[in-house]
Amino acid sequence: MVDPKTVLQNLEELRALTADEQGAQRLAWSQIWLKARAWFEERLKSLPVEHHYDAAGNRWITLPGKSDKALVIGSHLDSVPNGGWLDGCLGVLAGLEVLTSLANEYNGKAPCTVRLVDWADEEGARFGRSLFGSSAFAGTHTVNADRVRTDRDGTTLEVALRNCGIDVERIGGASREQKNIAAYLELHIEQGPILEKLGKPLGVVLGTKGVERWTITFHGQEAHSGSTPMEARRDALASAAKLALEIRPIARKHPQSVATMGSVKTFPGIVTAVVGRCEATLDMRDLDANILAGMLRDAREASERFAQEERCSVEWSKIWSIEPIPFHPELIKLCEEAVTETAEVSEKLPSGPLHDAAEVARLGIPTVMMFVQSLNGLSHNRAEDTKREHLELAVVALNRLAEKTIHWIQQHG
Amino acid sequence: MVDPKTVLQNLEELRALTADEQGAQRLAWSQIWLKARAWFEERLKSLPVEHHYDAAGNRWITLPGKSDKALVIGSHLDSVPNGGWLDGCLGVLAGLEVLTSLANEYNGKAPCTVRLVDWADEEGARFGRSLFGSSAFAGTHTVNADRVRTDRDGTTLEVALRNCGIDVERIGGASREQKNIAAYLELHIEQGPILEKLGKPLGVVLGTKGVERWTITFHGQEAHSGSTPMEARRDALASAAKLALEIRPIARKHPQSVATMGSVKTFPGIVTAVVGRCEATLDMRDLDANILAGMLRDAREASERFAQEERCSVEWSKIWSIEPIPFHPELIKLCEEAVTETAEVSEKLPSGPLHDAAEVARLGIPTVMMFVQSLNGLSHNRAEDTKREHLELAVVALNRLAEKTIHWIQQHG
Repeated sequence: MVDPKTVLQNLEELRALTADEQGAQRLAWSQIWLKARAWFEERLKSLPVEHHYDAAGNRWITLPGKSDKALVIGSHLDSVPNGGWLDGCLGVLAGLEVLTSLANEYNGKAPCTVRLVDWADEEGARFGRSLFGSSAFAGTHTVNADRVRTDRDGTTLEVALRNCGIDVERIGGASREQKNIAAYLELHIEQGPILEKLGKPLGVVLGTKGVERWTITFHGQEAHSGSTPMEARRDALASAAKLALEIRPIARKHPQSVATMGSVKTFPGIVTAVVGRCEATLDMRDLDANILAGMLRDAREASERFAQEERCSVEWSKIWSIEPIPFHPELIKLCEEAVTETAEVSEKLPSGPLHDAAEVARLGIPTVMMFVQSLNGLSHNRAEDTKREHLELAVVALNRLAEKTIHWIQQHG
Repeated sequence: MVDPKTVLQNLEELRALTADEQGAQRLAWSQIWLKARAWFEERLKSLPVEHHYDAAGNRWITLPGKSDKALVIGSHLDSVPNGGWLDGCLGVLAGLEVLTSLANEYNGKAPCTVRLVDWADEEGARFGRSLFGSSAFAGTHTVNADRVRTDRDGTTLEVALRNCGIDVERIGGASREQKNIAAYLELHIEQGPILEKLGKPLGVVLGTKGVERWTITFHGQEAHSGSTPMEARRDALASAAKLALEIRPIARKHPQSVATMGSVKTFPGIVTAVVGRCEATLDMRDLDANILAGMLRDAREASERFAQEERCSVEWSKIWSIEPIPFHPELIKLCEEAVTETAEVSEKLPSGPLHDAAEVARLGIPTVMMFVQSLNGLSHNRAEDTKREHLELAVVALNRLAEKTIHWIQQHG
């Protein structure tokens, strides 16, 4: 039997060790993150498991079973700066408790191998490259593009990795861990307001939304704010302001679409000059690839129309994109059973945020995620929180899902 | 007789001495500015004038006449970084040519004293405090607020002044120069597109527009761009975008009003977060104080309406304001005569940009300015330019206006 209180106690202990007044500080490749990982290693000592780091810095803990086919439970210990106490580490510590429970229950004779993975640098908060470890595992990593990325202090990703014993040239070796994996499970806080609004503690994740992420630059004409008549202006900010408002009806055409302008920069950006150049970012997401493509098309057309209206020009430059990744239908069903048996009610929803599970699912490994309700939809913030009773339900439901999945692997895996 | 070609030659010489590939670099209190002032001092050697710096670093050149009553012609040698070749120095060098011509014409017996002033730091480009020298002259300086201002390198205004021999505590002493001034004239490039659009070389300035300059901050809720449904957002950027568009119809209600949102800053300002806080600047100008107050009221009300629509809050913080300053009706008439006699056509227009003339006029000293056409409305930019024949007309017209004003001072001053 799992003991959810142990998970809560571990979460509190990790918070005390790695947070300050501003929140969690387990930034990947930092000393505090290494401290969190060392603390976690202490928790493994009493377990009959093998554990090691792979070539990308992901830690794999293996409980052998009667079959080499492996169920993997995963999440990440790293956080954003000034982050919350649950994002990532809830999944790792709940997974640890499930592993402990399975070790006790089967006494070395589980029907299949069970593994726990602590992914390295899920957040990408320091170098702007999220899903670092899981993408190396999945072979979708982009080392040549990423190695020269620098943090605020000018340290390159390559050097930060080396300080943690990782050789950037070799991280692709993490793909060796793919062998024999039959299913992947991940528990995470929702980070949004949907479950709270519905009054449901837990939810089943249908997949991760596709993401289109672009920089949009409007070019007008810098001009003196005092001497340039309104009708003579070519105001790059006006074009961007129209687009900031127009992306909202574009997203609202579809119930689960989101579109966000998160950054606007004005040049020269002084009080006495009409904006000559305006750089904005756009992030659009949906679980349906066709809907997402339509949103992108609509936003582009709108931007061109607005540029023309304001006698500006516009250019689009891609930051990054990923296709929608649906999870495995049979594991979704098992997850729904586990959630309903534990919390009486369930809810199916897509994930807007990306997760390491997306990288695993892209490989064709049957995957599902479970969400636990977030309070006020907040995350990446010290105010991030979840009711204690919901965290306990989540641990129980993850354990149920693991048992069901082990059974499923035996039958189908 | 004035020789406009001498002015053009001096302008070219000054450009060669103080500009680089990016434009003019006569930033006030810099070595290049001091070099420009030293070069200018050389030009005074052959003239029968007294010259000195006042306590704020303004240079006064005095051609004595039969009366102590003084006509003053002024402008500034300092420029913004990467500035143009005409802004400011045209007025000083045209004034020098007029002074030279009057010295020759009257041979020490001009009906009144004629003075030329090169104001210090009109642009305020380094410390954000424009009209530095003329406000010290007018007694509207704000030393206690300004002395701690720092430039990009962290040098304080106080230290920069000391390096140029100016004691910040004593700059108010510049007000001693007010004595006996009977009229003030200033020639400047328009810095806007109006005269070019009308096909007129020269214009008569009615006064400087009043300015309201504010920072407007919208507070919403930072949220994850992937997990926060559109209807759950409190997007601070959306409020600001609505205001960026709304200030335009507010300004267009009046033919000469302008309103500019020159800077928008988003926080946290990352591609994956809904904007929690948005800081925008607003600059509004009109020659009529009632119209300006009405525009400010309309913009405030609109910002509160938009904040409410987006479930945000808004606060306004004043950066700076100045009332409209109308020029002297009789000097406006003389200027119109001088312009028409020189260029056949004339145009009356307000000045959107501020000028040192505004500080002089605030004292009640009869003041007028003359504009010469700018090409493409550009200034504060190396592309700033004016047709050579228009510059020549401007010098001739300024000389005519000086003669008329000397006569006017004799009669009325």
